[in-house]
Amino acid sequence: MKAVVLLSGGLDSATVLAIALDCDYECYPLTIDYHQVSKKELECAELLSRHYDLPLKILDLNLARITKSALLDGCIPDNREHQGDSCIPDTYVPGRNTIFIAIALSYAEGLGAEAVYIGANAVDYSGYPDCREEYFSIYQDLINVGTRCGIEKHPIRIETPILGFTKGEIIEAGLKLNVPYGKTWSCYAGGDKACRRCESCMLRLKGFMEAGSKDPIQYEELA
Amino acid sequence: MKAVVLLSGGLDSATVLAIALDCDYECYPLTIDYHQVSKKELECAELLSRHYDLPLKILDLNLARITKSALLDGCIPDNREHQGDSCIPDTYVPGRNTIFIAIALSYAEGLGAEAVYIGANAVDYSGYPDCREEYFSIYQDLINVGTRCGIEKHPIRIETPILGFTKGEIIEAGLKLNVPYGKTWSCYAGGDKACRRCESCMLRLKGFMEAGSKDPIQYEELA
Repeated sequence: MKAVVLLSGGLDSATVLAIALDCDYECYPLTIDYHQVSKKELECAELLSRHYDLPLKILDLNLARITKSALLDGCIPDNREHQGDSCIPDTYVPGRNTIFIAIALSYAEGLGAEAVYIGANAVDYSGYPDCREEYFSIYQDLINVGTRCGIEKHPIRIETPILGFTKGEIIEAGLKLNVPYGKTWSCYAGGDKACRRCESCMLRLKGFMEAGSKDPIQYEELA
Repeated sequence: MKAVVLLSGGLDSATVLAIALDCDYECYPLTIDYHQVSKKELECAELLSRHYDLPLKILDLNLARITKSALLDGCIPDNREHQGDSCIPDTYVPGRNTIFIAIALSYAEGLGAEAVYIGANAVDYSGYPDCREEYFSIYQDLINVGTRCGIEKHPIRIETPILGFTKGEIIEAGLKLNVPYGKTWSCYAGGDKACRRCESCMLRLKGFMEAGSKDPIQYEELA
């Protein structure tokens, strides 16, 4: 029973990898290097895969050449209050989850895997449209009609086990499964230490607080 | 009024590019080098873009590293009768159109384009599940809920102008628009001349016959 796990190197996908392993899946982590500013995530995906002794694939896809996002040009906003009128923040990467799931699907179908796991979350999240239940439900319909496995009536399932969790609940679940959170990275900025100011850092810190635990990664000191 | 046009370098996508230009779109051709055996297609995408004086983007995505297909390993079947029981041929590439449309979507959203054109065809085609009307209809739903442009109620449209055409009708439409078919390539094999034996060559030759025209590309002689 195989599963492809989209592993960004962040806290959410690390937790989802642990959940998939706990469900007895033979896991194939897949990381897409989409030329985001923060390379720490990629290093963490490697550290996590080594930790669990799993064969990581890192696939190169230079989205910075074709599209626009604060995660690609490095202009990371301090937090959402400083942004424009849109409910979707500047860190939105057009089509990102649609691309990532499609690539994971291609890998999974070649492997004969049953599921694709993704660490999307629709509670303590940045408001990205491609992180909501409705989106994944339609994507499942797309797999059911648009793939060989779908036509043959054993479609690959998209698994989103933390979609409805708060950040605190994600971390609690992960701590129970001994996820090595020191080997994960969430900060959107490209620094050596987490910036503590971007939305991703703020959500992560809030999550550890809710879970009553201390985040093992290093943060910049507040000025 | 901008459109991203998925341009493989084949006959179908070349025709669709001409149709999009004829609809007065400012066209941005996009080619994905997915490490298919036949590199002639990529050369043709460049020739076509130069012909129309358009800025081609070629994006590298090494699907051969992660999935399986006759188009990736070069074991091209002579025709479908020689294949297994499945109604889907060995040239099926898992997730291909799902990936390509997702990347085109990312490009289109960054550009502020209104449409993504794709040369899919559900009549004289190889039976791929990701070339059917139902599939594109669900993909449109996915865009409507999973993108910024969808949330803001001006979703990028997937345009499939030749979906219901026979190969002969595609070529007739293209000839009216002066598509330079000598700068297109359809053969699945990697040779200098088209093999004449693979399903793609057979469909192409049938199409030119139906359109009452001569295919300008070179074919291998029959033994």
